[in-house]
Parts: sequence; C-alpha cells; structure tokens
Amino acid sequence: MNAPVLPKDVKGSPETVTTGPVTGSHKVYAAVGGRDDIRVPYREITLTDPNEAPVRVYDPSGPYTETDARIDLSAGLPQIRAPWIAARGYATAEPRAVKPEDNGFASADKLVAPCPAERTLRKAAPGQMVTQYEFARAGIITEEMIYVAHRENLCREQMLDRAEAALADGENFGAAVPPFITPEFVRDEIARGRAIIPANINHTEVEPMAIGRNFLVKINANIGNSAVTSSAAEEVEKLVWSIRWGADTVMDLSTGRNIHNIRSWIIRNSPVPIGTVPIYQALEKVGGDPLKLDWEVFKDTLIEQAEQGVDYFTIHAGVRLAHVPLTARRVTGIVSRGGSIMARWCLAGHRESFLYERFDEICDIMRAYDVSFSLGDGLRPGSIADANDAAQFAELETLGELTKIAWDKGCQVMIEGPGHVPMHKIKVNMEKQLRECGEAPFYTLGPLTTDIAPGYDHITSGIGAAMIGWFGTAMLCYVTPKEHLGLPDRDDVKTGVITYKIAAHAADLAKGHPAAQLRDDALSRARFDFRWEDQFNLSLDPDTARTYHDETLPKDAHKVAHFCSMCGPKFCSMKITQDLRAEVLAMEEAGQVVGQAPAMSEAEAEAGMREKSREFLAEGGKLYVDAAE
Amino acid sequence: MNAPVLPKDVKGSPETVTTGPVTGSHKVYAAVGGRDDIRVPYREITLTDPNEAPVRVYDPSGPYTETDARIDLSAGLPQIRAPWIAARGYATAEPRAVKPEDNGFASADKLVAPCPAERTLRKAAPGQMVTQYEFARAGIITEEMIYVAHRENLCREQMLDRAEAALADGENFGAAVPPFITPEFVRDEIARGRAIIPANINHTEVEPMAIGRNFLVKINANIGNSAVTSSAAEEVEKLVWSIRWGADTVMDLSTGRNIHNIRSWIIRNSPVPIGTVPIYQALEKVGGDPLKLDWEVFKDTLIEQAEQGVDYFTIHAGVRLAHVPLTARRVTGIVSRGGSIMARWCLAGHRESFLYERFDEICDIMRAYDVSFSLGDGLRPGSIADANDAAQFAELETLGELTKIAWDKGCQVMIEGPGHVPMHKIKVNMEKQLRECGEAPFYTLGPLTTDIAPGYDHITSGIGAAMIGWFGTAMLCYVTPKEHLGLPDRDDVKTGVITYKIAAHAADLAKGHPAAQLRDDALSRARFDFRWEDQFNLSLDPDTARTYHDETLPKDAHKVAHFCSMCGPKFCSMKITQDLRAEVLAMEEAGQVVGQAPAMSEAEAEAGMREKSREFLAEGGKLYVDAAE
Repeated sequence: MNAPVLPKDVKGSPETVTTGPVTGSHKVYAAVGGRDDIRVPYREITLTDPNEAPVRVYDPSGPYTETDARIDLSAGLPQIRAPWIAARGYATAEPRAVKPEDNGFASADKLVAPCPAERTLRKAAPGQMVTQYEFARAGIITEEMIYVAHRENLCREQMLDRAEAALADGENFGAAVPPFITPEFVRDEIARGRAIIPANINHTEVEPMAIGRNFLVKINANIGNSAVTSSAAEEVEKLVWSIRWGADTVMDLSTGRNIHNIRSWIIRNSPVPIGTVPIYQALEKVGGDPLKLDWEVFKDTLIEQAEQGVDYFTIHAGVRLAHVPLTARRVTGIVSRGGSIMARWCLAGHRESFLYERFDEICDIMRAYDVSFSLGDGLRPGSIADANDAAQFAELETLGELTKIAWDKGCQVMIEGPGHVPMHKIKVNMEKQLRECGEAPFYTLGPLTTDIAPGYDHITSGIGAAMIGWFGTAMLCYVTPKEHLGLPDRDDVKTGVITYKIAAHAADLAKGHPAAQLRDDALSRARFDFRWEDQFNLSLDPDTARTYHDETLPKDAHKVAHFCSMCGPKFCSMKITQDLRAEVLAMEEAGQVVGQAPAMSEAEAEAGMREKSREFLAEGGKLYVDAAE
Repeated sequence: MNAPVLPKDVKGSPETVTTGPVTGSHKVYAAVGGRDDIRVPYREITLTDPNEAPVRVYDPSGPYTETDARIDLSAGLPQIRAPWIAARGYATAEPRAVKPEDNGFASADKLVAPCPAERTLRKAAPGQMVTQYEFARAGIITEEMIYVAHRENLCREQMLDRAEAALADGENFGAAVPPFITPEFVRDEIARGRAIIPANINHTEVEPMAIGRNFLVKINANIGNSAVTSSAAEEVEKLVWSIRWGADTVMDLSTGRNIHNIRSWIIRNSPVPIGTVPIYQALEKVGGDPLKLDWEVFKDTLIEQAEQGVDYFTIHAGVRLAHVPLTARRVTGIVSRGGSIMARWCLAGHRESFLYERFDEICDIMRAYDVSFSLGDGLRPGSIADANDAAQFAELETLGELTKIAWDKGCQVMIEGPGHVPMHKIKVNMEKQLRECGEAPFYTLGPLTTDIAPGYDHITSGIGAAMIGWFGTAMLCYVTPKEHLGLPDRDDVKTGVITYKIAAHAADLAKGHPAAQLRDDALSRARFDFRWEDQFNLSLDPDTARTYHDETLPKDAHKVAHFCSMCGPKFCSMKITQDLRAEVLAMEEAGQVVGQAPAMSEAEAEAGMREKSREFLAEGGKLYVDAAE
C-alpha cells in the first residue's frame, strides 16, 4: 500500500485513509466506446489455475484500490467528468456565500477548513438540457450512459452470441434484463424513468453508475459524523472504507458542527454518488425546532448542497397533513426522522407540508444541477405490526403522484421503501411501488423480516433485502448490527456492506442476471479443486475467509492440502468424488453402463438442455466451459 | 449461576458447563393435561412495564437454565420419560458389549470413561407397539404428544375463541397450522406422517419436541469432537451451549477416539433429541476405507447407537449405484460425506447400496427403540451450479420410495434437503419433497443462496433457510460462519444458532403462526416506549444487544433515556411521534378532522378489518390489545 498524501490544514487526529488493492485482486480500467476519456474500472481476480480465466467483478472502490494509489485529499480525485460537462456548455456561477449556520456555528478554533480543491461551479439555465433524464428523453446518449453500459456488462462481452440467455434461468417478475447492455438500452431505461444515473454536474469526480431494476442490484451505506470525532480525513475514511467493500452509493447523514466543510471533503474525494437528507441540516439551522422550519431555510439548504455536488436528495414530500392521523394508532408510530419532523411541522400549524406545496420549485432547483430525487418514505413501518398499513401506502400513493411531477420537470427519481416487513408482505410492496410510481427505481431499507433480534438486524434485514431485490428493488440500503442500538464502528460498517453485497448478489442470481453466476461457478470450481487461495480471493471478503481457514489449519501446507478441515485428510468427500468422477468418465468412455439409469426426470431433462447450452457456449467463451470438461 | 457438579472420573481439562438463566428471563414449568408428571418448560421474560404481560418463549435449553441449576453430569439429567416408558411394558435387555473399535481403539491411558449414570436398556418385541407413529396410527395419544401440544401453544391458551385466526394473516402454502394445538391434533399429524417426535425409548431424559410443517419451525446444531480436545464435559458443554441459544435438536458428528463413551455423556445429559450419522462410526471401525464397509459392521453400529439412546439416524439409503454417474459432470460432485462414502462403495464393486438393499432390516432395528429416520441427501448440491439437478432429484424420488417402506414398518421419518440453491429454485425443492415423500417433514441445510461469501455462509444460508422454512420446511440445520473453511468455535456456534432462530421465526411469522408475532409486538412496544431493558431482554441475544447499546451510550442513565443514539436527544423521531400521537388522539376525541382524509385505500380497508379483529380479540386476551389503546 502507498500512504496517501493527507490534508495539511485539517484539524483533528491525523488519520490516514485505506489504500491499495483488495487482497488477491488488482484494478483494471477498460477504455470503452472507442474513447480514451471513458475508462471503466473493474476489480480483476487472478486465479492460480492457468485454465481459469481471471474473474472481473464490479468495483465501486475508486482510485483508492489502485496498486500504487496516490491520494491527495486536498486536491480531490481526478475529475473524469469535467470534459464531458464542459462540452455541454453550462454557465459558470458564483457559489452561494457560506454562512456560519452551514457549519453549525462552529467557532473559529473548532472550524474544520473546507477542502481546498479548486472546482468550477456550473448550473444549467432554465430550458437548457442538463439531467440524464432530459438527455435520454431527447434521444441523446451521454458519456455517463456509455460508461454504465460497459460497467454493467462485466464479462458479458464474451457472450455476444446471446446464447447465454439460455443460462439465465432466473425468475425476474417482469423485469427486462437484457443479455447484453448497450448504451442505447441505458438511454431507453432512463427515458422510461426505470433507471437513474445520480450524478450532479458539480460532482465531476463521480464514476457513473446506474440504479434500476434491469441493472445489477446496488447497495447504499450510510455514514455520518459522531459527536466525538471529526477530522475531515476521518470522515473521508468512512466513505473509503464503505466503497472498498462494495457500497455503490453513500449517504452522508452528518449533523452538527462542520457539516458543510466536511461535506466538501467527502464529495471532492468520492468516486460514488453521495446522497443527503437536506431537512436534517435545515433543522440544525433553526436550532433543532421543527416548528421554526420554513421554505426559505430549506430552499437555501437545497442550493447550498446542490452547489457542493450532492448527487441525490432524500425529500420527504409524501408526508402530508392528512397522513399524520393514520400513524396515531401504530405500534411504533413514525420512525423516519425526516417523516417525524415534517409530521410535527404539519400538525403544529395544522397545515399542509411545504415540501409538498413547493414541490415544483424543489424540482426546478434540483434539475439545474441534475440532483436526483430519492423520494423519502417518511411513514415507513418501524415494526412488523405496522407493515403495509394505511399510512405507509397512503404516502406511497402520494410519492407516485410526485414522481410524475418530477419527471415532467425533467428530474431523475427513485423511491424509498420499507423498513420492517414480514416475508409474506414483501412482494406486495414491490408490486404496489411499480404500479403507483410508474416503475421508478425502488430503494429499500432492508426490509427487516422480524423485530426480535436487535444486535443481528443486518441479518433480519438481509433476508428481506435479498427477497425484495429479487422482486425488483434497484438499490438496497444497508443495515448494520448496531441498528436500533448504537452507532456502527468500522467493523459494523464492513459487516453491513458484505451482508448487503450477499443480498444483492443472491437477488441478481435469482433474477437470472446473465453474468451473475460466473463468480459463483469460479469459486465452486476452486473449492472442488482445493484451490484454497482462489477460494479466498473470490470471496466477498478474502481476508476473513483466509483468517477463518487458518484458525483451524494454520500451516501453509494446508493452503494446498487436498482436503478440508471439516472431514480432515482421512475421508474427504471432495477427494473421494474427484476419484469417482475420473472413474465414471473412464467407464463411460469404455461404453460401460454404470448401474441402471433411472427414468428421465423433468430435472434431468432440464439439466440436459442446460448441458446443451453449455456446450454451445463453450465455443463462445472459456468461462462457460464446465469444470468437468 | 450455580457451578455444576462435574464428573470426577473424566480425563481432559476440567471444564465446566454453562448454567443459569438467559439474561432477563427465568424458567417456568407448566404442569399440563392434569398430570404433574407432564411439566412443560418455557422461558418467561418479565417486562418492566406493569401493563405488559410477561412473554413466554419456547425453550429447549433444559434444566441448565434453571435459576438454581444443580447439574451432575455423572448422574445425567432427570429421566422425565422413565415412568411413561415403563408403563408401556417393554422387556429390559442386556446391552451389547462395548468393543475396542467403538471408541476408535483408544488405549487405556487415553480412554475416556463412559458416563456412570445407571439406565435400564429397553427394547420392544416384534409386533409390540413402540414408535410414536405406531401409537398415533392406533389412535393412542402418548404423554409425548400431550407434552408437545402444550409446548407448541406457548401463549395461545388466551386465544381459545379462535378469533386470532383473523390475525394470522400469513401465507402458508397449504400447511394446516391450527389456531390452537391439541394432543389429538399432534396424534393426527404423526399418524399422517407429517410430523415426528424423535425420542428413543432409551433416551428417557429428552423433553419431547415435534418436527413438522404445522408446528413451529425448528433448528438443529451440529457438534463434534475436534482432534485436539476431548474431555467429556467439554463435549457436553458444546451441547449445553447450543441449546442455551435455541437449538431444538443436536447432531453429534464426532469421529475418532472415545466417541462411544463421549456419546454416553452427551445423551445422558441432553434434554433435546440427539442425531447421528452411523456410517461415520462404521467407517472408523473398518479403518476409514469405504470398500471395507459391509452390512454386518453397519448393523452392529446401528444397534450400538440405538441402545445408547440416539434419537434419529441419518441414513444415506437414497444413494444408489445408478445415481453415481449423474454426479460425474457436476461442478462440485458429491459434497455429503455419507453420500461420497456410499457412492465410493457402490462404484467400486459396481453393486447396489447395502443401505438400500437392507432397508427393511434397518427399519426393524430402528423401530424396536423408536429411532427416527433422517433420510440423508447424500447427493445434495454443493454449489449454485448443481442445484436441482438430475442427481439430486433422482435421490429425492428414491427417498420418497423409502419413506413409504419405513412407514409400513412403523418408523418415524423425516427427509434431509439441500444445500446450495439460488432463491428462484428453492420453492420447487419444497414442492417436490412434499409430493415425493408424502408430506414427511423436510429437514434442510440452509440452503445457501450464493457461493461467493465463504466466511459469511451463516448469512448466505440464513436467507435460504428463512424462505424454505416459510414454504414448509420443518427443521433447519444451522450453518456457521466457518462453513467450508474450518471448525466452528463457541462464538461461531452461537452466531449460527441465533441466525437460524431468526430464519425460523421469520418463517413462522410469514406462515401466520398464531402466536409468533407476540414477541415482535412486545419488543416493538418496548422500543417505542424506550424501555431499553425490555428491548434487550426480548432479543434473541440480550447480552449482545445490551453490549452494543452500551458501546455508544454507556451511562446507566441512558438505559432509561427517552431517545436513542442514532438521533440523539435533539430530535428523536420516536419522541416526536409519542407527542404527535397524544395530540392526534386528543384532537380526534374533540371531534376535529385532521387534514383531509384520503380516499379509503385497499390497505386502509385491510387495516380497518385488522383493527376490528384486534378490538374483538382485546376481550380475549390482554396480549392482543394494541399498544396504542
């Protein structure tokens, strides 16, 4: 690893950010679309078996995982989008002057300096095309669309003959995942409102990514400052650590002192889209009293954060006065912070939400920078008892109404979802969201499938996340083991991210995503061949896999041992089977019939077809040759 | 806690076993059926709110969690079933003489003494009714059936008006979970072969439990000796630790030295059914060479273990010669140890499995002690690529054939299932098993829903376990984080058990099990009321929940704080909502209409009906009164 250059002028502990490749892999960039300014990143895992092609996996970790990463937090990341944005000809603008309340009135001695990286503020004029949605509707393919098309394909270039569709035997509940993703497909999905590319024109460092039902399922990690900490580098490290393990977007939920300046450090150094909940900062500006909130302070906060480059805003405009009474008899009432703040505001003055009434103006502000909407589910259920109730669904219907307004205004939109939902009530959430919100991407928190395991809610929610991801949710917001109990530490964040990568991948497999099973198969072959290093390196967490193995079989010799610690050398089932396989294949070659073949079962028939398509594909690409061949 | 009396004469480290109640709860016994010799155990969690009834939860942990537990491993647990069995009048028998190979030829200095607890060996004569299946078919309700009927009901006594059926709004895919479980219902389920009570007549210490689709979903934990360890107390502690956290049955997969004698310690001190895989010990007796296996050594091993009191045997009689070639082209071949051993044996001599050919005799031996069958899935898939293939389903069809033979012989039967299966292929496994095996209980390992996360396979499998449990699987075999990598330690076992308790409970909720949501609702009310202690104690793992909370908010004051660490005191959504609720309810009482009520949505209608049934139930039992009332 190569120690990053750290900000000189940042107060707080001189933290370092984590750099260097994830164990067993290295970063590769593929120049695509015949343009050397569009370089798509992958993490490539090289295997010890020369017959095994390296496995390329989706990689949101940015330059931090390059082999010789040179990171300078003060300069920020390379502005890969700068030339694309510049070519679109937006006027430069004067940044809004920073006010003391933007940083929570931090006193001079406590003030964290803003990130010194120089950036040009840009803003679209009224009527000037700026959002990915507007370009898509106009039939224009942007660089961002080309980038995500290639990024989503992973190894699918080897499968252009489309035959792999035969292998994609999943159930996708009406999704339209294509065998191969083209820039035109991306444009069309965005134009239909079925996908978004959250990318503020002032976040030129972002590596474009797509959120939509017909793309890989994504995950989000939440970070935030805690009372005690806060050097800028410390906050940036939370981001770097989250994306290292696979977070596709990060929401900064910080409150209190220095949030404006620390946000500048986070955005300038983030290769993934950053989301925020502006109402949090607006509330701080009025001293934490919901009743003091008004449109002016909220509007000012939207502009402040949009100029900084935030890529998506959670806006709780679906919490209307009429919905509040629907929550009164709930077991856990309103559990969303934004939702409870707005409900408080509405009920106090017995007035309609200003977010709802000013929604047009909110759209105009967000459109000018291409900030995407994440329409917040302020009334999501906070317990199994409240799942799918009147309040939740009334808000969802309002979010559907707002989605269409935002589209008319040219904005990109996704919809936030629950929460706490038992397994049998998950599917209807997805179906209703698709129906009410015109297939706009769904972005859910879990859902948690039971309330009885605080301390393990990454698991109670991982179950629901995998299922709703399969049903069609485009992005899953992670839950850590500390949910409901405390603030996640470094290990909790990693556990949360890995758990959600599992849920997202299990969903991709079940949907029949053409390339998803490549990694499973490569790992399974490594397992069967006792290629321990390959098995570790193909894991979502190579370090933990290796550590667990070494606890039982520490000796290096065992890394190549042809047995595993469960059975030991004496009778390892895998070893026995390897011998069996050789024998059976030999006997078959000799034309011997082994036993009496059972009647052809439907399963066998299916397997036969599968085998056929395998053989066919074998020509297409080495990766699909069965290990047995 | 009260230190248990430890065996004096056991070699190895003087370990102690864990005793005393799980934090925040105490053991209660309810004498049922008007008989003081049938005392059903529950774990009762008392809450700090006087308006909250204590919550009773299912408790497989045995006498070890009594407040003043007095444990004497040398004497074994109380023989609660002894009088029931004695009354059935089986002849006493002379135990088979222990042979050196039974203990892996352990030399005198290494030999662990057997458990000295005195027990009378009993065996049914041919034609003499002995199995729960035989009694059930004859229309006889046994003490074991009465015991499990009450055990399964938990708090359902308060719901005899049956109205709670309205609350059980789950989807159970054709299961027949009744509002209230009677001994006659248990008898009928066993007579239909849809449930079993694994209880060897020589395991008089077992607290009867039921495994069946129409009962609570159960979980199994695997334990086994490791090369390094082995005092008897150390092995018993693995059992005690597993059941403390909720394991309903335990499989002893030990191999090597002292297994016969250590097994005697485990069984004499186990309140839960113990399962084994006899082929493992049989293989040891012939020096680990599958080709040296024969019927005689296997038969002798069955009798040896049946006499000791093992409650169920995994028998891989479904691995037939003709199935072996179906595995040759698999990515991961045969991953079951028993399966690979039998495949090896069949192929070597090109002969049919002796387990299959001698199945009648196996039934006769097991029937005489009421040892239940766990028909092993020796050909379960070991990877996503091999899921639902010809080999797996061919074996399942054979297991269906064997199930009917075992029933004709009077034996209790459950069926083992996969393995590694992507989400979209899970349901067909359940459907095919129900069809092929006449609704005999399904007992699955996971399934793992992806192969790419070694180190986290408790999670990849917990997702599949929750789903297949919902679809109808009766018992879930746990998977620990060390799966595929190494041997689980104490923490891994606890993590595996808690993860599977989550999966099983999520499944019970989704199936609409009438009493399942009581605990979720109690915990949710505690959360909303900021009753932190109650929230911790209602958790599956109170200690971890408390620890996580204290890491962020260590001060005791915070245990009663009316805010949580996520939002902090400034604007806690829960706090805001509590105020809102009060206001709304007050306004409504004053006849004010809050906002414009939205059109009655289907969700609202549904909620209305739900509310009605709640009100109705409120009369039935305090537990069902909504927290808001």
